[in-house]
Amino acid sequence: MYGLIGKIIAAPGKREELISILLEGTTDMPGCLSYVVSQDNTDENALWVTEVWESQASHEASFSLPGVQRAIAKGKPMITAFGERFETTPVGGHGLA
Amino acid sequence: MYGLIGKIIAAPGKREELISILLEGTTDMPGCLSYVVSQDNTDENALWVTEVWESQASHEASFSLPGVQRAIAKGKPMITAFGERFETTPVGGHGLA
Repeated sequence: MYGLIGKIIAAPGKREELISILLEGTTDMPGCLSYVVSQDNTDENALWVTEVWESQASHEASFSLPGVQRAIAKGKPMITAFGERFETTPVGGHGLA
Repeated sequence: MYGLIGKIIAAPGKREELISILLEGTTDMPGCLSYVVSQDNTDENALWVTEVWESQASHEASFSLPGVQRAIAKGKPMITAFGERFETTPVGGHGLA
């Protein structure tokens, strides 16, 4: 499995709109076992995306999906910066669909 | 919802055993929507736990579960330190069971 934990800083006032775009664009991604979008509790402009994929290849392939490309095009102008980013190898747990 | 992203540093050589203990002890936790344990890809002793709960209360309550208490008792001696820890408010996504 392949995992990503990443923080995104939205432009001021744009976090909720960016979250909606991320959630809409990522509903049907082959090989995606978990994709959760969360508000950061200490920074009103920050959000986290935590992802689990069958493989790094399935993650890479997702960038070719029309829904993901649309989400990137719509969301990119609302992103001020990327924060922490951790690559992981998930080994198990609950909620890997 | 309530979310946690946390890094744990295992004692040298103890990461896999600690991961097994965490996975065994956390299979049946009321209110837990996602609980994923991952190896860090850059530190051979580090692991990540990413959690999504119905509420902060259900997370707190999990510490009273016998399985969780056993896991803490068994795993604690294998933990050298805690790393980054981020509290979040998950808003949606895929893999929330």
